[in-house]
Parts: sequence; C-alpha cells; structure tokens
Amino acid sequence: MSAVCASVDDLRRQAKRYLPRMVFDFVDGGAEREITLRANTADFEPLRFAPRVLTDVSQVDLSTTLLGEQLALPLLIAPMGLCGLVRPEGELALARAARAAGIPFVLSTAASHSLEAVMDAAAGNLWFQLYIFRDREFARSLLQRARAAGYRALVVTVDLTRGGKREKDIHNGFTVPPRFTRRTALDLLRHPAWLWRMAPHRGLTLGNLVGWGGQDSNVIALSTFMNTQIDPSISWADLDWLRAEWDLPLLVKGILHPDDARQAVAAGADGIIVSNHGGRQLDGAPSTISALAGVVDAVSTSADVILDSGVRSGADILKALALGARACMIGKAALYGLGAGGQGGVERVLAILRQELDVAMALTGNHRASAVRSDTLKP
Amino acid sequence: MSAVCASVDDLRRQAKRYLPRMVFDFVDGGAEREITLRANTADFEPLRFAPRVLTDVSQVDLSTTLLGEQLALPLLIAPMGLCGLVRPEGELALARAARAAGIPFVLSTAASHSLEAVMDAAAGNLWFQLYIFRDREFARSLLQRARAAGYRALVVTVDLTRGGKREKDIHNGFTVPPRFTRRTALDLLRHPAWLWRMAPHRGLTLGNLVGWGGQDSNVIALSTFMNTQIDPSISWADLDWLRAEWDLPLLVKGILHPDDARQAVAAGADGIIVSNHGGRQLDGAPSTISALAGVVDAVSTSADVILDSGVRSGADILKALALGARACMIGKAALYGLGAGGQGGVERVLAILRQELDVAMALTGNHRASAVRSDTLKP
Amino acid sequence: MSAVCASVDDLRRQAKRYLPRMVFDFVDGGAEREITLRANTADFEPLRFAPRVLTDVSQVDLSTTLLGEQLALPLLIAPMGLCGLVRPEGELALARAARAAGIPFVLSTAASHSLEAVMDAAAGNLWFQLYIFRDREFARSLLQRARAAGYRALVVTVDLTRGGKREKDIHNGFTVPPRFTRRTALDLLRHPAWLWRMAPHRGLTLGNLVGWGGQDSNVIALSTFMNTQIDPSISWADLDWLRAEWDLPLLVKGILHPDDARQAVAAGADGIIVSNHGGRQLDGAPSTISALAGVVDAVSTSADVILDSGVRSGADILKALALGARACMIGKAALYGLGAGGQGGVERVLAILRQELDVAMALTGNHRASAVRSDTLKP
Amino acid sequence: MSAVCASVDDLRRQAKRYLPRMVFDFVDGGAEREITLRANTADFEPLRFAPRVLTDVSQVDLSTTLLGEQLALPLLIAPMGLCGLVRPEGELALARAARAAGIPFVLSTAASHSLEAVMDAAAGNLWFQLYIFRDREFARSLLQRARAAGYRALVVTVDLTRGGKREKDIHNGFTVPPRFTRRTALDLLRHPAWLWRMAPHRGLTLGNLVGWGGQDSNVIALSTFMNTQIDPSISWADLDWLRAEWDLPLLVKGILHPDDARQAVAAGADGIIVSNHGGRQLDGAPSTISALAGVVDAVSTSADVILDSGVRSGADILKALALGARACMIGKAALYGLGAGGQGGVERVLAILRQELDVAMALTGNHRASAVRSDTLKP
Repeated sequence: MSAVCASVDDLRRQAKRYLPRMVFDFVDGGAEREITLRANTADFEPLRFAPRVLTDVSQVDLSTTLLGEQLALPLLIAPMGLCGLVRPEGELALARAARAAGIPFVLSTAASHSLEAVMDAAAGNLWFQLYIFRDREFARSLLQRARAAGYRALVVTVDLTRGGKREKDIHNGFTVPPRFTRRTALDLLRHPAWLWRMAPHRGLTLGNLVGWGGQDSNVIALSTFMNTQIDPSISWADLDWLRAEWDLPLLVKGILHPDDARQAVAAGADGIIVSNHGGRQLDGAPSTISALAGVVDAVSTSADVILDSGVRSGADILKALALGARACMIGKAALYGLGAGGQGGVERVLAILRQELDVAMALTGNHRASAVRSDTLKP
Repeated sequence: MSAVCASVDDLRRQAKRYLPRMVFDFVDGGAEREITLRANTADFEPLRFAPRVLTDVSQVDLSTTLLGEQLALPLLIAPMGLCGLVRPEGELALARAARAAGIPFVLSTAASHSLEAVMDAAAGNLWFQLYIFRDREFARSLLQRARAAGYRALVVTVDLTRGGKREKDIHNGFTVPPRFTRRTALDLLRHPAWLWRMAPHRGLTLGNLVGWGGQDSNVIALSTFMNTQIDPSISWADLDWLRAEWDLPLLVKGILHPDDARQAVAAGADGIIVSNHGGRQLDGAPSTISALAGVVDAVSTSADVILDSGVRSGADILKALALGARACMIGKAALYGLGAGGQGGVERVLAILRQELDVAMALTGNHRASAVRSDTLKP
Repeated sequence: MSAVCASVDDLRRQAKRYLPRMVFDFVDGGAEREITLRANTADFEPLRFAPRVLTDVSQVDLSTTLLGEQLALPLLIAPMGLCGLVRPEGELALARAARAAGIPFVLSTAASHSLEAVMDAAAGNLWFQLYIFRDREFARSLLQRARAAGYRALVVTVDLTRGGKREKDIHNGFTVPPRFTRRTALDLLRHPAWLWRMAPHRGLTLGNLVGWGGQDSNVIALSTFMNTQIDPSISWADLDWLRAEWDLPLLVKGILHPDDARQAVAAGADGIIVSNHGGRQLDGAPSTISALAGVVDAVSTSADVILDSGVRSGADILKALALGARACMIGKAALYGLGAGGQGGVERVLAILRQELDVAMALTGNHRASAVRSDTLKP
Repeated sequence: MSAVCASVDDLRRQAKRYLPRMVFDFVDGGAEREITLRANTADFEPLRFAPRVLTDVSQVDLSTTLLGEQLALPLLIAPMGLCGLVRPEGELALARAARAAGIPFVLSTAASHSLEAVMDAAAGNLWFQLYIFRDREFARSLLQRARAAGYRALVVTVDLTRGGKREKDIHNGFTVPPRFTRRTALDLLRHPAWLWRMAPHRGLTLGNLVGWGGQDSNVIALSTFMNTQIDPSISWADLDWLRAEWDLPLLVKGILHPDDARQAVAAGADGIIVSNHGGRQLDGAPSTISALAGVVDAVSTSADVILDSGVRSGADILKALALGARACMIGKAALYGLGAGGQGGVERVLAILRQELDVAMALTGNHRASAVRSDTLKP
C-alpha cells in the first residue's frame, strides 16, 4: 500500500493492480449495463452543501448511536460474500479493522470464514446477515449459531430473489462453476503477489455453510448448492417468522420503496438498509442516495435508516446524514482497502473516511454526526 | 458465437466482427446525424424502477395476450428488409427462432425470402408487413397471398413517404444501385466467413416482389423498382381501403402522435406500433419510449400498443410495459443475433431478453407480464 | 468534392482538408471559448418533432415568400467577408449558386468582390449588407451604389460595435496585419491545391472599399482601415437615418432581444435577422434557435423574422420554421461548400438542404414551407 | 510568454509548461475530487447574456467604486500563499501589476514576502488578508503592522477551520513537510527555467511570519508551525473582536450562505467575499457563481459583495456583476500569468480581462461597470 493513497479512489486503483482482473471485476462490477452501479456514486456529485461559518468547530463529534449502541463513526462495513478471494484473511481483516475503528461489521452468510471464526478473531460489534434459504431449518440453525456466538443484530437481505447478471464475471469466466481459459490463466499469472498469498490457502470455502446439504467444504460445490437455495418465494410472512425467531435488533436490507419500509417497520424491523445490493442485482434500480429521502420520510421516526452503496468519501457520508440516514455502509470501499493492503488497507479506508467526514462537518458547520442539520445541503 | 455473449450488446459486437462494414452499418445505422437512433436506446436509461420486495416471486409469468393470441413473451420480431444479406437464411432463421420462443415474427414486404417460403419454413405466429405501393393492385395481391398463406395479422407501415437518408450507407457505397470501390472490395475480403456463407447464395432477391413490374429476380433491379413504388400520397383513405381488404387484425406501424393513434383506431386499427422506423427515417423524431405514454393514454383502452425501436434488454421491455405497452418489437437486436450466429444467435438474443425480463420483473415485484404495475417506474 | 458528401458535415470535413488551417479556422471558428458557437448548432439537437402520418405528402411545396418576393426555398446565403480567401471566385460563386437555387444572396460590405461585379456575375435576388462606418458619407455612397446596381434589400448589421476575439485566428497569426511564422508557412505548403488556385489571384482585396480613405486596393491596408471605421456609437437614431436613406426593404441583423426587435420594427425595419454573428462576436450570447421564439412573439405579425447561425441540415430549417422563422440564413455551411468544391460545392450544400427539408416536411406531415404547423415540434 | 497568449486559458497552458508539476498542481488543484473546483468555472458557462443593440457604446466605463475607493476595473487580485514558489518575486509582481492596472491586491498572511516589503515595492491599493490564529496576540500584531504599513482594508478568511485535502499535492509529495522522491527530482529537473530562477532564492519563506513562535525563517518550519495555529474555534465573537481591533474597511471571505452574510454585516463587515477558497477546502461546496445571487439578495444594500473563484474571462466578470457582485477576485488566473511571465504575465492577464470585459459590456449594451443592468443575463 503506497504512501500516496490519499483517497478511497487511490486504494481502488491499488487494489486493481494487485488483484487478478477476474477478482477485481467481481468486487467492482455491477449488474448488466451497470447503470445503477454508476448512478450509486454519480448521484452524490450534484448534491451541494450549504456551508456555515464561524460556528466554533473545535469540537466535532463523529460518534453516533445506532440501535442503542455507540458507534465511533456513523459507518458500518457491509456484508459481502467470499472476501477470502481478495485476501485469504478476508472477513477476519474486515472485522478487526471495524473493531479498531469502533464500528460494526456485518458478516455475510456467504463469508469465506465462519461466523464463529470471525467472532473469535474480532469480538467487536458484529452483526450477522442472513439469506432466507429454501431450507428454512438451515436458516434457523444459522440464527442460533449467530445468537450463540454473540452477534448483536441481524440483517436480512431481501433483494436476491433472482441472481443479478454480472456480465464482467461472465466475460471473465468467473462463474459458478468457473470457466478456465488461457486468458484466465494469464490473468492470474500476471498477479503473482496475489497468487503467492492465496497459494497456501487453497481451502477457500464458505465458512458458514460447510457441511450443509451434505456438501463438503469445496467452495465451488457449496456455491453451486447455495445458488439452488436462493428462495424467490420469500414474502412478508417470512419476515414475521424471522421476527419471531430473533429477539435482538433486526434490519431489512434491500429496500428502496417507502411503502416497503413502512411495512417492514410495521412487521417489527428495527432498521431499514436502503440498498440496491451495490448495483449488483437490478440494473435500473434507483441509486440509493436518490431513494433515501423517501424512505426517511416514511420511517425515520420509528426506525434507524442506513444508506448502503455508493459511499466513497466522507462528504458522501455527510450528504447521506443530511438526508436523514443514521449511518452509512461501505462495501466495495472496504474491499478496495482489503485488496490494497489487507487489514491495514481497510484501516486506511476507515481513517480516510473519518478524516474526510471530520473536514466536511467542520467546513459545513456541523458539530455532531448524530445531529447533522437537515439544511446542510442546498435545496 | 462465443460462450461469453452475455448481452445483446455482446452479440452486437460479435455481429460487427462477422459482417462487412457496409452490411453492419446498413443494419446498425440511422438517418442523417443519428440523433433519433441514439435517443431510441439512450432514453431508456434515465428511467428508474421503483422495486418492491417480499412479494413471493417464485411464479413470474412472462406470457401475455396480444390481439387475442397467447405469446410466451411480450415480444415480437419486427419486419426488416433484406435480412438475407446478414445470413443467407435470413428471415427463415428469424421466423424459426420466433416460433421456438413462442412469439410472432413480422415478415417485411422487402424480405429476401417470399412469404410463402417463410410460412413453409416456420408455420408459427407469422404476421405480414405491407407498404402501400403506388401499384395498389400489387399491394392487394400481397394481401391475398398473405391471407392464403396463413399470416395472422397485417402491419401497415406509414412512415416511409420519403426515403430516410442513411449517411453511412452513402459513405459505404451501399446504395441502390451500389457503388463498388477498392474500399468496398477490401471490406468484403476482410470478412471471409461472411463471404464464404454468401457465395453459394448469389441469388439474393426480394422474395415477395419477384416478377413484379416485369422485373426479374435481380435484387438491385427489384430494389430500384420498389423505391419508385414508395407512395408519398398515402392517406387515411388508404387505411379505410386496407381495413376493407383485410379482415384479420390490422396494426399501423410508425405512429408517434396521440392524435394519429386515435384516428387510426377510429379507422379500425386493432393495434398501434409506436415506431420511428428504428431511427432510420426522420432524424429528430422523438425516441419511441418518450412518445409511448402519450399514445397509450390516447388509445390503450381500445387497441394494443406495441413499442418498436431501441429495445436492447429485458429491463427495457419492462420499462415499456410499465408505460403501457402491451409488447415490444425488436429489430436490430434480432439482426445482431442473426449476424453473430444465425438462427442460434437469434435464439440466444431471445433467451437473454427472456432471462433479463424475468429478473427485472422478479426484482421489481411484478408477477405477470400481462399486468405490469404502472407504478413500476419511479415518478 | 467527393461523391460521398452526403451532408453539410461531410462538406465541412472536405473543406477542412482543402483549406490551410488558418483559413479554415477563420471560417469555422468563433469568439473566445466558442460557447456560443457550439450552442448555435447544439441547441437544435434536443428539439424533437411531433410527426404526423397519412396526410398525403405527394406535394410538398418548399417555396415561400419573403418581403413580398418568391423564394424557391426558405433560405438565404448570409453576408460574409473575404470569401475570396476560400476560393478566388468567392462571392461570385455564392451568388451564382444562390441564383441557381432561387434564393437570395446577401453581399457583405467586406466582400472580396465589389457589389457591381457580383451583380454582373449573377443578377439574381441580391441583397446588400451594410456596416454603418464612422465615415457616414462612405456608408451613404455604398447605399447609392447598391441601389443603382439593383440590390433589392438592405441588411444592416448592428452587433459589431467591438471586434469579437477569435482566439484561433490569434493562435494562427491570422490577424490584421497577419503574423507570418514558420508554422504558418508550413500550413500553406501543406495545402498546395489551395495555393495553386490562389496564386494567380494575389490581388485579393475588399472590392466594395477600394479607394476609400485614400487606401489602395491592398487587402491588408483596407482591412486595417476598415477596422478603424467600426463605429461603436451606432444607435437607434442611425436606424432612422438609414430608413430615410433607403426606400427598399430594410432588415436589421444581430438582434436577440424581443424589445430590440420591437423597437427596430417601430423604426421601420421590414425584417429582423436573429443572429449572434455566427458565434463570432459575444461569447455567452444565446444560441439563435433559443432566442428565436421570443423575437417571433414580439414582431412576427408585422415583420419577417429570419434565423441566422447554426443551421446545418434541413431538419434544422424545419425546426426554425416551426418556431416562427420565415426563413433561415446559412453562412458557414455555404463556405464549407465553397471550400470543398467552389460554386458546385455551394450548390451541393443547397441541394442537400433542399432534399433534407423536403424529407423532414414530408415525414412530419407538413405540406408548405410557408405555413409550417406550429405544433410540428413536441412541446 | 508567447505572443499568441490570447486568453487566460492560454496563459494557464504556458504556466503549466514552465512550472514543475508539483508547483503547478499546487496552484491549479482543488480539494478531494475537485467537484467544487470544476463547478467554479463550469457553472459560468450555462449563463447566457441577453444582449441589447444600438445603444451607443462608444463610451464604456469599466471603473467602479469599492468601499469608497475608485477602481479602474471591477477586479481584485486575491490573497494567495507562497506565491514565491511560482516566481521568486511572487507577491511583489502581483502587487505591482495590480497597481499598474489600478486595482487592489490583497496580500495573504501566508505570503512569501512580508507585508512591509510588498508595500515598499508597490504602494498601491493594498489590502491585507488575515487568518485568526490560535495565537491571538500574533494576529493582533499582524493587524498593527498592516495598519502601520498603510494597508487600506482587511480581509478575514473564515473557511479554513480545517485543512482541505488536496490530493494532487499528496500524490506529488508536495506536503508539509515535503516528501522527496525520484519522481519529484525528475519533475524539477524537467523544468530548468524554473530551477534557474529559483536557485538564487533558496531563502523562500513566509515573510509575515518570520520569527513567530521562535521559528527561524525556514519555510518548512514556518509552514508546519502555521498549520498548528489554524484555529477551528473561530466564531462570531472573533469577528466582533476583529471589528473592534480594525477601524478601516473589513471584509469577510469564505461566505456562501445568505444568513452568514447577514450576520457578518450585522457584526460590522463592510464587504462579503463569496468564496469557497478556490475549490481548495470543502469539496461539494457550491460554486461561487451559483451562490452569489443568494448573498446579494441578503446584503447588497448594506455591503459590497465580491465574487471569488472561477473567474477566467471578462464575460465571467460581467456575469457576476449582472448577478449583483460589485467586483470579482482572481486567484489562479493571476498565478497563471505570474508563472507564464512574471509581472508582465500578470499584466497580460489583467489586460486580457479588461479587453474582454469591455467587449462583453459593449456587445450587451452596458455602459458602466458600476451599474450593470440586472437584465443583462437571460432569465
């Protein structure tokens, strides 16, 4: 990781150099034409601050509370699958960096390390993300394991009733099962640092799913099986079931419509995560920052609203807070850090965002991240 | 056709490699500065979905009814002239692929294969497209042939009262009669696969017009003659005449104005095809997706409205359905498939669109293509 | 001039190859950052037609009347200085091409050929353009010469109270007096066809100004002197004076504001030419197509309104007519033709525009250029 | 400085060639993603004039009054730090060029030359810019020195409560302390003219700060110390203190919000400088031209409003005046001139702006820079 990494975009560039193209594209790409992927970041740009001056910003408090817990930053690391492909330590590094920064890490069902291993490595504010599989008993067993291991909140993802088509993955042969070609081989050989680090860890797997459905720990077999378990029939009744199964905070991830947010809160959700799955599912979905205000208007008095997708800078975070988000989630940004420098890279990303958020708050005249003025943005 | 063709755009790229430039540009180009051509696809992009979640999308029904018949997809293949230039089998391949997919194929008056030959090859849901020539008796004879052969609906094209100026064709010498140059020859020689397939089929012709006006089957002579038969005087009275001549479903293609749609329906049209001839006629015409809602408001209670031009993905189809179209027509997209892989390429295109439409419907919470929610798009 | 010149843009490209860069840039460039120059053409593009069908367009009448005279096309060739630099025949070729096409040519005060020579060469519908110089007696003498020679209308240009800064001319050393450098010499040597044609015509001059102020016919001396004669003090009183001096139709060129148009008509102007001097004077002036409707609303019932600047296609002309212009003027487009092929090139430009206008009118359902429907454009 | 420098953009290009990349980027760059930097210039472009003609513009008066003093142009040179890096003479050249042009120069606290040296070199209309440091006594001593030396007005900068992150500086190693690398060395060696001029002036310092805090005159030590003195606690109470300390005109620089402008005027400010620190502080701040009208509406009847940031042409100045600014400040534009040609380069910049402003005023029908018509811009 170079000394001149001044921004998340710099870390993205460095991760791009480090990772084989097929892995980078898997991390960085979106569905179909990537209209939504681009909009997720682009739609922040036209938003403009309405800065206030001479307000004494010697004390700017970046901490906030979320679902009753204290966060050092209004930020979480999003659940992402197979982070072990980027660096073998994968989710362990993300969890440790999050703990060091005083923010939650949300572990994906499809993580490369098991939820128990991650809790062992970094017993911080860990949350668990769940897909409601066709095999409800297995889903229930995951809940019990998460509860037992000390996970503090549950995030249920509801926007995966079909697999989004990531065309770069298809072009790269990065599919389940993978397609090996000369181009693929060349791609790997051109990234020896990555190969060198991965070599001793051939046992890449989906840690939470080992043994499920009689599969062994082979990552391809498990992924294939998991894909068959994606359940398109999930409905509001399943949320009720989940609410009954899980007595700690419950958040619904993948909501963009105010009416869905209202219904989720009515069903007992404690938080709403405005997300389009990082632009990886429905191409043509609105950017999350453009959908945020509608959801906030609908439910922010009774639930915490978190903005996922598109956050690349502290100014982005402040814009989301000004529009009513309680906190933001970063996914790709964290993986850029992981690729660029392992746990240290993730910590660098968090440090950059922290500093940028502090600057943006000070220069707009905001004193507390937990109470950003709604007139922080120009109308 | 490569294994990594994941999208219609991929097939377009592959067709571009396969076809001589003059043929590809003939397929792909538009009139004058191509303002309308570009708008046809570009105007879909800013439309954004308003996705709904947790609605149980295990059953998504892509079928619909159109003019009383069942379609497996809300899709048709548009009428196009001289498809035999792309692959010798031309319209035969299009018709077969359409039949296999359970959707109608509309055969052009200017097809390279005769309407009888196409019906012989693929007796599916075939429609016939008619230009009202100066020689009305010949037009009438085409109707009688189409009726006799079993064509189920008639599409009359009304936006060809002048020939649109396709500047790429002029630049390439791809005119009637053609202009042969060293560059042209080189272009052909650089595409040996195309040449090899075309060589045994030197007898390219306009199958429906053979013998007309005393012309032999020479494609250049026939095209020249047909151009002189384009009738700029066509008027609403001709639509009345046609309605009297044809007792099966009648659709008017080339309408963009709500008042014209109303008048066509009043004259007995069963369907309106919102089309700007794929951006090949009037440069400066509105994109069809931007003209759709006006026409739907005017006539959708009494006629089926079909959107032509610009469709390149399943998400595009869903956007058109959300704006009130009953189905979409693809023209260029089908020819990209034909160029990339013959009938198999067309089938690939249809499979891609089917899968994309299924994903887009599931992820927006739509269950039936015949009843897409009008609030599927963000206001 | 190549056979594949299908559009004005094609002729522009060909003129660019033929002309030394300094001459092409003089023709093609605009003031300062060329914001207005670009807007002049770009602002046509977002305007969209609202096409009507089945209206019998076998008869489309492109002729119109302007100031009581019949024009074969709603088009004029604009006054431009020093056309002899493009081709030695310069204004003679423009006038002949205009006469052949049945449209007026407006001769500039700063023409390379004298008004008498132009009338001798092409006694068509010729108009004369006047700058009101500090030396009013000389201006008066020009009027008398124009009247005597048979010029039918007078165009007074009012937007030259300062010289616009054409940065390309400065960069190229194309200034008065010119700056000769090695780069300039190279530029000329790279365009031998132009040099060859210009060589026998070293006597380039400003035909109307020869002898004025004691200057000889040397073009540089005359240009320098003319620049000192630009009068920034011109005011509405001068228009009154001119109205009294000239008893044939009088038009004011360079108006963009409705109130100025009203005042000009009140002062006796018969026509208003909405112009920003082809983007060559005030950078930041609105494009003419964006200023047109305001002027039309103000004066079209009492004066003919002509749109200058930015017209490159027949569709552009139709858009201007739909917004209330009686006719359009082309400047650069005519010079592209002149550069590409002399008089034949200008005729090609006019033929292209004629054909494009015919197509656009037919395909929008317009039958007479003198009565274009105001709902031809989408609202 | 080349003869063909026709615009500020030309001088920018020339400065870019002359200066080491790290110095040019320091001058030219902005904070973070440079959204605000780009908007500062880009937001002028869509503004369009509403030109008036025939108003007799033989007399166009570019002078104005500002805070009771006469200015030859509605223009000031903005305070900038470390101009000695561009050329050793730095602020001396800026001050002399400003005096020659009859406009004020505002000397930065962080200037390379001391305020006394600048007054000695160019005793024109000099203003002093102050940062309110933690060490208030030192700030007070600066005021006393400025008062004693004859500075006529005080500009207090309020938008530096944090240091903006200039990523180009970090990439270039141009930080405090600097980071020397092979790339840096190469950069310097590639710009021998700059090195040659700088070599005899190794003693680059911050002239106003020499001796402060016990530091010697070493520029790096002083810059490091100054950074620790940036006071984030400044508040409206400090403005009261300053108003009491300084009895000449007082302006507040860095205001974008109408309410802040109102409060500053209520606290005794004589002028408001609408500024976002040249896009170098808060990325995402509105462009100044977009924030101008709001501030003008709030305070222009009781204070002079000056627009800073983004001005690159005379047309830009006129647009700002039309929106109610009393004058504009140039920062980067002046440094481009300084880099391109020392004092002569700055004078060239001012001459270009003067001429462009004269042309824009004449061609819009404006006669006095002190009373630009508010309807000079199209609504």
